[in-house]
Amino acid sequence: MFFEGSEKKAEVIVNLEGKSLREIDQDFWSKLVAKCEATILSKISNEKCDAYLLSESSLFVFDDRFTILTCGQTILINSILYFLENHDRDSIAQIIFQRKNEYFSHLQKTHFLDDVKKIQEFFEGSSLRFGHMDAHHNYLFHLDKEYKPQSDDKTYELLVYHIASDVSKNLTSGKLNATEIRELLKLDQIIPGFEIDDFVFQPFGYSLNAINKDGEYLTIHVTPQEESSYVSFESSINLVEKAPIILETLRPHAFDLMTFNPQGYENSFESIPAIYQNQTLVRESISCGYNVEFAHFSKNEREVFAAYKMEI
Amino acid sequence: MFFEGSEKKAEVIVNLEGKSLREIDQDFWSKLVAKCEATILSKISNEKCDAYLLSESSLFVFDDRFTILTCGQTILINSILYFLENHDRDSIAQIIFQRKNEYFSHLQKTHFLDDVKKIQEFFEGSSLRFGHMDAHHNYLFHLDKEYKPQSDDKTYELLVYHIASDVSKNLTSGKLNATEIRELLKLDQIIPGFEIDDFVFQPFGYSLNAINKDGEYLTIHVTPQEESSYVSFESSINLVEKAPIILETLRPHAFDLMTFNPQGYENSFESIPAIYQNQTLVRESISCGYNVEFAHFSKNEREVFAAYKMEI
Repeated sequence: MFFEGSEKKAEVIVNLEGKSLREIDQDFWSKLVAKCEATILSKISNEKCDAYLLSESSLFVFDDRFTILTCGQTILINSILYFLENHDRDSIAQIIFQRKNEYFSHLQKTHFLDDVKKIQEFFEGSSLRFGHMDAHHNYLFHLDKEYKPQSDDKTYELLVYHIASDVSKNLTSGKLNATEIRELLKLDQIIPGFEIDDFVFQPFGYSLNAINKDGEYLTIHVTPQEESSYVSFESSINLVEKAPIILETLRPHAFDLMTFNPQGYENSFESIPAIYQNQTLVRESISCGYNVEFAHFSKNEREVFAAYKMEI
Repeated sequence: MFFEGSEKKAEVIVNLEGKSLREIDQDFWSKLVAKCEATILSKISNEKCDAYLLSESSLFVFDDRFTILTCGQTILINSILYFLENHDRDSIAQIIFQRKNEYFSHLQKTHFLDDVKKIQEFFEGSSLRFGHMDAHHNYLFHLDKEYKPQSDDKTYELLVYHIASDVSKNLTSGKLNATEIRELLKLDQIIPGFEIDDFVFQPFGYSLNAINKDGEYLTIHVTPQEESSYVSFESSINLVEKAPIILETLRPHAFDLMTFNPQGYENSFESIPAIYQNQTLVRESISCGYNVEFAHFSKNEREVFAAYKMEI
């Protein structure tokens, strides 16, 4: 059975005139999550954030925004619509909705363009594709509404493909507990001092939420299937800087880096080991205030392998 | 409006005990083609082959086999099933059915695995995937039935992506006639002496069938859309050798070479210009007698571009 690791993601930014999204009862978030056919597994909180671990990925609620990622066959658009139906239009400052290239898009219940049409019943917006359609790419929708992000409002997404087979086998063995997976991922080096909430799925799969008192967050989702291992990292911390640790651990064949930065682009990828070649770089300054960069890297060597035998 | 250029393909090999597939009335082939929702546009013939140009790609009928390629939203499996329903099971020597990675697989009416299940109501078979699921790949099904191809029964597929924008603009201008497109593609160098049947579609798109008296064939299908230009070549002639001419003309960013060879693999790609890097090479000796090779090449340089603005 194949599991679609590719995430859908939404960041909804609000202006509630002094009120906080975190004042909303948890029952609301449970319902919002249920709308996309996921459930809340656990929660950690600090002064800045409530971080929910979901049956399919994660939800982070801050005072002025929430970020939700869901994978598998979830219908994330339904959660966004539920939020919009329960809030004044004027309170919505911005929505950024993303879907990355999926392995089996024909098994998804909706496509990006279907989703966008539904948001456009509420707001005008723009749809972009970062990357070629026949290669790794990321669809992005944002509202056509003026928005000025804080200068430190940065987001980093690191999407890792085809991790080394020994690592993948280790992760699919079913023998590692959460502590051992944290060690394998060298989280002490990546997020020292963060509070962690994680979950090991059966037969395999791993999700992690981590937050710290500065309002930083990291979420990791591991889909270690033999023939299509995929690990995603999404964070406010600089994952371009942290990439060498992650790449050394997972030794993937390819990865994508997507960054949102109000101030400029990640001008250099000097931290990326030379064994990886940046094949495509897509840059776009989107009208809601972020410079968005999508960079696809793959190993600078020929990969030779046999055909994959499919079971019908 | 996006047009799915990615082909589905079937080669059905028969043993009619001295009879030829070419004795079958054209009405049968018209019905077979209609089953996948295409139509016959024109036909050329010689001693070895009837070559039909279709509204969506091509059909070649030889004495002991037919090869059909269809693109768009055609349901090629229905044509195969129509053939099987109208022929003795014992007369079917082999079936090789392929589908390449599609741009918008969610818009397809069936998926490869659905198709294969239908063939398996008649025959047992094996399903393989050449290439990673998140990169260019090609699905292949063949019957689990002993088959010994002739030593010269070779097939070459060259799938070309992201042709140079000046070439793509020229091809989408709507101003080129068939003769000018033949010249642009340097067909006099690729297939000297072949009889040609071609068609220029409106607003753009180009299909070509070519055959010669030795039983060789070539078919070309051009889908020159601005944001996803795609050109496919399929032939019994050695397209690895001809690739330099084609690559010099189209200057694509990436291409795939898939070869079927009963004797061995295309051991070297010495003819491929050094500007292209072979990133993945998949080799599999399939049990029906062919060594199948799938090689993905892309330009050995970083491509920098802006996001693509999607119209909803």
